[in-house]
Amino acid sequence: MTSDKLFHFTQDLNKLYRGISEIFPNVTDSQDVNENLGQRLAQCDRPLRVKLGIDPTGADIHLGHSIPVRKLRAFQDAGHTAVLIIGDFTARIGDPTGKSEVRRQLTPEEVAQNAQTYLEQVRPILDFDTPGRLEIRYNSEWLSKLDLAKILELLATMTVGQMLEKEGFDLRYKQQSPIFLHEFLYPLMQGYDSVAVEADVELGGTDQKFNIAVGRDLQRHFGLTPQFGMLMPILLGTDGKQKMSKSLGNYVGLREDALTMYSKLEKTPDSLVKDYFELLTDKSLADLPSDARERQKLLALDVVSQYHGEEEAQKAQKDAENLVGGKTFQADTVPEFSLASVNFPAKLFYVVSASGLCKSSSEARKQIQGGGVRIDGEQKMDVNLTFDFPESLYGKVLQLGKNKFVRLVQ
Amino acid sequence: MTSDKLFHFTQDLNKLYRGISEIFPNVTDSQDVNENLGQRLAQCDRPLRVKLGIDPTGADIHLGHSIPVRKLRAFQDAGHTAVLIIGDFTARIGDPTGKSEVRRQLTPEEVAQNAQTYLEQVRPILDFDTPGRLEIRYNSEWLSKLDLAKILELLATMTVGQMLEKEGFDLRYKQQSPIFLHEFLYPLMQGYDSVAVEADVELGGTDQKFNIAVGRDLQRHFGLTPQFGMLMPILLGTDGKQKMSKSLGNYVGLREDALTMYSKLEKTPDSLVKDYFELLTDKSLADLPSDARERQKLLALDVVSQYHGEEEAQKAQKDAENLVGGKTFQADTVPEFSLASVNFPAKLFYVVSASGLCKSSSEARKQIQGGGVRIDGEQKMDVNLTFDFPESLYGKVLQLGKNKFVRLVQ
Repeated sequence: MTSDKLFHFTQDLNKLYRGISEIFPNVTDSQDVNENLGQRLAQCDRPLRVKLGIDPTGADIHLGHSIPVRKLRAFQDAGHTAVLIIGDFTARIGDPTGKSEVRRQLTPEEVAQNAQTYLEQVRPILDFDTPGRLEIRYNSEWLSKLDLAKILELLATMTVGQMLEKEGFDLRYKQQSPIFLHEFLYPLMQGYDSVAVEADVELGGTDQKFNIAVGRDLQRHFGLTPQFGMLMPILLGTDGKQKMSKSLGNYVGLREDALTMYSKLEKTPDSLVKDYFELLTDKSLADLPSDARERQKLLALDVVSQYHGEEEAQKAQKDAENLVGGKTFQADTVPEFSLASVNFPAKLFYVVSASGLCKSSSEARKQIQGGGVRIDGEQKMDVNLTFDFPESLYGKVLQLGKNKFVRLVQ
Repeated sequence: MTSDKLFHFTQDLNKLYRGISEIFPNVTDSQDVNENLGQRLAQCDRPLRVKLGIDPTGADIHLGHSIPVRKLRAFQDAGHTAVLIIGDFTARIGDPTGKSEVRRQLTPEEVAQNAQTYLEQVRPILDFDTPGRLEIRYNSEWLSKLDLAKILELLATMTVGQMLEKEGFDLRYKQQSPIFLHEFLYPLMQGYDSVAVEADVELGGTDQKFNIAVGRDLQRHFGLTPQFGMLMPILLGTDGKQKMSKSLGNYVGLREDALTMYSKLEKTPDSLVKDYFELLTDKSLADLPSDARERQKLLALDVVSQYHGEEEAQKAQKDAENLVGGKTFQADTVPEFSLASVNFPAKLFYVVSASGLCKSSSEARKQIQGGGVRIDGEQKMDVNLTFDFPESLYGKVLQLGKNKFVRLVQ
């Protein structure tokens, strides 16, 4: 190893380690490059292979998913190779018990479509262009070739007791909730991905520690140097309470338009703003505005810029301010619509139609489905969205297309 | 189904059910042919496929192993098809943890050799000649073709809890003795054998109930009619205490010569004689001799006849009587050798050499290894066989080859 070679890499540990929850192994007083990632990075004479596995079962991804992808980009920028593994094999099998709705079997076309959609969404984050910085692999490449002899070998590396210690299994076993035997294979399959791509580092949420550790064991079993695990926190949603999730409605999707993203992010609870800055931006945490409202706006502007560019982000900020703040932009001219005439619970399409923005319920439905309806700037595309009480809508601006508005009042 | 077809089968339930421990399912008041084997047999319009799996990891088999093979023959005689499955796949893999001495990995040549040796040993029992009565299958035929998707499907048919209820696993889990994950696959592999050969009945020892039941579940999963399980008792060894086993030395091997077999069997403890008759012969239990000694001799004669023919069996009986009883056959002319001059514990080869039957210890070793040494008619081939005290040898006849004898005395 010559010092010449080291110049290919920009080893800014502050950037690589920003916002991580845990790295393992992390023996701080060790000179063994395999026990301390800092040492390994300082001494490496080839790009490290940094693995992130993704599950192509759904189409939309959100800012929570973006965290490890951003970390992958940090490694790319430091000169290393991002190895993005599309878990097409599992998606094509689905849940063999047929019991899981979430894990229904997907056709190869659906998997390809989802993978494509995923890649489009992470395109603003990752470096797709610099040669040698991105490797996209489908795990069916190696998993479909495993035969029974090899699978017995994989299974024989672990005991039932070890597997049952995994978070989730542990609880289910104690509660006598059935664990199907094939579920034991999934951590081994993910681990074998690390063997197949010869990963040096695997990224994941804190919930991935067990699986990443299995990958280390399997790599050791197959005579490879075990990978490092780098764990990132699970992002809380915009409600500040539960983890960001599409089904909980507290998410910011990467495919949302600039105004929707901006409108959601500028309301980020102050308790979350610092975490969001740390995990979702490159901003120095020491230099954040002292004013809470300014911090929210800066956060929203930064994140939206990443996905829509700065110009769009600025425009979104301006539109949002006009809408919400009502300072300029014909704020006084926005007509009011009293919800007193509406029976609650009420569906969104009915409110849109009753407000006079659309002529009929069916037109309102079409507009919602087409993305033309917003409340306080947030696009609402769920035709069945229902409001239980009018109170949650008082003072908000219902918008149709670019130019039609009403303010919902008591 | 016409009654004509029924005439192809000899459905003597007494013979098929002789000596079995359990049959399942066995709903006695059911008219469903799939819940009662008697009904199924009475109504079948094709030969049933009766499966027995064998493990080609060792060379020698004994009378304990012969029990399900004899049952297989009973089904053959009734017009059905014996499906003998050689478990070559597992033998070729061995124990993937590398921890088991017993399950070391065998080469394809070793497996083929063991399978051949097995077939030679069961040749006297099974009908190898009548067309359609015997099918010999190697399970690598289907197991080597299983891919990960299929294996996930197999695993998904069972839960961890169900598997841990299996005798053996249950105890080991409670004792925190490690159970490796691949061990969970073996019952499923055996069960999949039943799917692959479309077994109607599977035979096995009482310790096979779980595995045979897994076969039923898998057959149902793959849209086949589940097999019946027919369980046979585990044979006690000639010591009357523990199960027959080569390592315990209480066994009668199918490859032993007639005199050795006879000499072991004629000493069968009276408490075992009826079981041995029931499980190892076709003799009517109602017609056994009233004299205990006569019962032992008849048992020995019958079993030896099965493997060596009646003439050899008669000769073995005569030789044994001459040796042991010492009635005729130069009984008085057998020279005596006093064990007083031998230091105990003593190895067999030393006793043989000291007795003057061989000129040297090295010749004695060779004779033992070559099968030329007997004690009271029983061949002793273990060069390291050791006697702790002389008392166990007093009065016995030590024999070299066909014509040299000494009686061991105090």
